[in-house]
Amino acid sequence: MPTQKTPDFDAKLDGILRQAAAVFRERGYHRASIRDISRATRVSLSGLYYYFSSKEQLLYLIQRHAFETLLAEARRALSSLDSPEEKIRTFVSLHLQYFIEHPNEMKVLTHEETALGNSWRQEIHAIKKNYYRLCFKLVEELRRERGLKRLNTRLAVLSLFGMMNWIYTWYSPKVDPGYAAMAQTMSDQFLQGILGSRNGLARRNVVKNVKESVTRRIPNAAKAGGNGVYSQRLRTSSHT
Amino acid sequence: MPTQKTPDFDAKLDGILRQAAAVFRERGYHRASIRDISRATRVSLSGLYYYFSSKEQLLYLIQRHAFETLLAEARRALSSLDSPEEKIRTFVSLHLQYFIEHPNEMKVLTHEETALGNSWRQEIHAIKKNYYRLCFKLVEELRRERGLKRLNTRLAVLSLFGMMNWIYTWYSPKVDPGYAAMAQTMSDQFLQGILGSRNGLARRNVVKNVKESVTRRIPNAAKAGGNGVYSQRLRTSSHT
Repeated sequence: MPTQKTPDFDAKLDGILRQAAAVFRERGYHRASIRDISRATRVSLSGLYYYFSSKEQLLYLIQRHAFETLLAEARRALSSLDSPEEKIRTFVSLHLQYFIEHPNEMKVLTHEETALGNSWRQEIHAIKKNYYRLCFKLVEELRRERGLKRLNTRLAVLSLFGMMNWIYTWYSPKVDPGYAAMAQTMSDQFLQGILGSRNGLARRNVVKNVKESVTRRIPNAAKAGGNGVYSQRLRTSSHT
Repeated sequence: MPTQKTPDFDAKLDGILRQAAAVFRERGYHRASIRDISRATRVSLSGLYYYFSSKEQLLYLIQRHAFETLLAEARRALSSLDSPEEKIRTFVSLHLQYFIEHPNEMKVLTHEETALGNSWRQEIHAIKKNYYRLCFKLVEELRRERGLKRLNTRLAVLSLFGMMNWIYTWYSPKVDPGYAAMAQTMSDQFLQGILGSRNGLARRNVVKNVKESVTRRIPNAAKAGGNGVYSQRLRTSSHT
């Protein structure tokens, strides 16, 4: 048995977490038992309890590992970039790559959020908040650079997470493009969507003007824009 | 006790479904008991079993009622409209209004999809598929009207559902705008996002050209566009 906190321990735990995520996805967290995990991992029950003390702690470890990985990878990749747009494209690409390559974790993360007890849930929540804030900061940088005065950054960022995270309900590697092409499409759609808001009109006039302006040519920002002038507070309870 | 299939029966059942959705949201479907539902609705256990025969059937009824309502309301509203853009804006508005006004159903619908047995799940799936196809048809209409040759309609529609449905994780009436303003912002973002794809370049050139073209002015479609040329098959297993 590897000793706690050694590379061997970490590698073994990583493998257990991946297979446990598959079991949770297959059977559902509430229905799955540690015995199921034992069968899937071929690690004895007492062997498993060396790594975690309960099914709930296992769920916590899966979530923590996933969000810490996402956050660390994003920070590392972004540190060498300057342009806000390039940073956003990179963030989207890493996020989609992780979830497309970890479909089990993706389902467990989105479905079993509420199954954790308070203190573990708060810890996961804090990591997710940092991850959300990182993305929020990137969109704020873009907003300043491009003068997107009327953009509601909170709504834009949470819409972006919605586009990306909802793939857990529909993504099929047989039908859909790989993560790089998915990231390209979603980044384009997101960026074009918010860049149009630069010189938005009062909301009341938007529908009419969009209709007039987009029939024959690309919508002009001054006409087609107008994401409402809503508050841009960063709520501390925001989710990714 | 009202007789089955009378308006009285329907109204009473509607009330039970709403309160049951609140209990499922509060306690989680697996943890909640029919006794909890009985307490919340102030209807006796035997009274409840007049309306449904199991907790699973109750979950099925909540889901069926919600999706049938969404589908019927969308069809009714769209029948009087001509412009694809106006239809999409209306669809988005009705969808967001329903979920913002029914936060309990929203959480139950997104979380408890897999809790249903096969035949009930298939029935719900069929209604959801019709609802997805309705939205797909609207975006296809817009695609033809505007000549958005490179748009991947499937990805666009599922991204739109992602933006809208993900609000179950973050929407707060205290912080966020009401459904009409939410619909305006999300419709603008979605429409601007896909209209930019009209004359997209080959994907390989997109990132570079976007960077060159958007710094000082609204991205020109011919440069900034280019949602990839992916397949546009309508998968029958797509979710909303």
